[in-house]
Amino acid sequence: MTADPLAAAEVVIVGLGLMGASLGYDLRGRCRRVVGVARRQETAAQAVTAGCVDAATTAALPAVAAADLVILATPARVLLRQIAELGPHLRPDAVLLDLGSTKSAICEAMDALPPHVQAIGGHPMCGKEQAGLVAAEPGLYRGCTFVLCPRPGASPAALALVQALIQCIHARPLLLDPGQHDRLVASISHLPYLAACALVGQAVDVATEAPAVWDVAAGSFRDGSRVAASDVTMLLDILLTNQAAVLAALAGYEAHLRRLRHLLEQGDEPELRRVLTALAQARRAWRQA
Amino acid sequence: MTADPLAAAEVVIVGLGLMGASLGYDLRGRCRRVVGVARRQETAAQAVTAGCVDAATTAALPAVAAADLVILATPARVLLRQIAELGPHLRPDAVLLDLGSTKSAICEAMDALPPHVQAIGGHPMCGKEQAGLVAAEPGLYRGCTFVLCPRPGASPAALALVQALIQCIHARPLLLDPGQHDRLVASISHLPYLAACALVGQAVDVATEAPAVWDVAAGSFRDGSRVAASDVTMLLDILLTNQAAVLAALAGYEAHLRRLRHLLEQGDEPELRRVLTALAQARRAWRQA
Repeated sequence: MTADPLAAAEVVIVGLGLMGASLGYDLRGRCRRVVGVARRQETAAQAVTAGCVDAATTAALPAVAAADLVILATPARVLLRQIAELGPHLRPDAVLLDLGSTKSAICEAMDALPPHVQAIGGHPMCGKEQAGLVAAEPGLYRGCTFVLCPRPGASPAALALVQALIQCIHARPLLLDPGQHDRLVASISHLPYLAACALVGQAVDVATEAPAVWDVAAGSFRDGSRVAASDVTMLLDILLTNQAAVLAALAGYEAHLRRLRHLLEQGDEPELRRVLTALAQARRAWRQA
Repeated sequence: MTADPLAAAEVVIVGLGLMGASLGYDLRGRCRRVVGVARRQETAAQAVTAGCVDAATTAALPAVAAADLVILATPARVLLRQIAELGPHLRPDAVLLDLGSTKSAICEAMDALPPHVQAIGGHPMCGKEQAGLVAAEPGLYRGCTFVLCPRPGASPAALALVQALIQCIHARPLLLDPGQHDRLVASISHLPYLAACALVGQAVDVATEAPAVWDVAAGSFRDGSRVAASDVTMLLDILLTNQAAVLAALAGYEAHLRRLRHLLEQGDEPELRRVLTALAQARRAWRQA
């Protein structure tokens, strides 16, 4: 192994959407070769033209069989299928990493692979509401937390390779158990999506009688509802592979709303002030951390 | 009246927080004089030093009595008191405008003034979560919708003066009935605040057992919870002077969440996809409008 294990690696990225293609931009020139795998020939050609990969193909199996590091950057439920289909074809000591937004089901699928596969679940906490290769950009991962769930059979060398990748893209690794990851992102990522969708739903209801609501909408609606414009297929994959944790987070959220509603109904200003002040302080503390 | 009624006007801004001071920056040099009124001498001095007013005082009555246009830029419940206290001292034909975030209670107070007062309720749909003179900036109002609720006794000349002001700060006037305004902003502005607060509440709950949740928090939490850091005193004023409309908006929001929860509990993917797709399209249509 060299000092920088990434430099000598053939990296194969399966899925050339926002996450996969952006990763390609950051990795090109930092490893031996970046090969992209797309479902459609047209996407493969576009990726080469765009410059996010050194080469691209629609033939996943031969690419994966030649890789030192395979990164699955497809939606969560496609991932589950690809882990089973492609995983067994990895070379001994080759590393399998995914970028899926939920981890329990994906890590279970990884744990069912032959023991020679060095599998590590991953989830970079970045993105944007636009999807696809055209939305990809260099530097997307800079500064983000990159959750890692190394599977029990993964070697120290496998983890070192993935950590070198995370360093290369200027992200911050965070080791978490898959179940804990899923509980955390349910509250901090999947719940905000549902909350944003409900804000849009309420605005749409109001707009049927008063279209002026769209003229009056400003910053708080803009930011609060932003992620409601996200790619629905990706979000469905996330919600349906993290159903229990999302429902638990949603129940907690609804309880907070009921409490706020109760205090407002009562006009209990001192308690409302106490609760809102504590929440404002928590929010400010996070941003400043 | 001159071609630009604003140019000859002595403008008095009562309240030198974010909204009042930012307005001062934009109006200075565009009217005869901008006079700021602050509760504390220290704030008055700071406003002059900062350059957002030509002069400043803590003596509201003489300033108001000499004004052509009085702009009340204080929190909603202070406004209610100031309308009654200061309103009767305006010169005949002088115009009273407020910048309060709710309009029904404020316009009722305006309607109780002596008939010589030209009163217009106003609400510029802009702001940011930082408060106070230090957060004020030129150009804050640029591009925003500025709701106007002219009272029945306001003359065309009074409305023309306020519209000249709105043009001067590059905002867009929108005439609305006070009750309709309050119903619209309840859903599009006050509800997003409560939704953001509940997101922070749920994250705080999770953090008590798993502080890593703050490391995992990224863009969707950042944007969805941003306004939870807003000034609590201002928001309490808003919620408590728009209680009925906010509770109605909250009830509609909770119904949307229940519907989404039900679909997720059932795992009803086709219907969930249909609902989420319609919401994503509505959100994208608004941003592009």
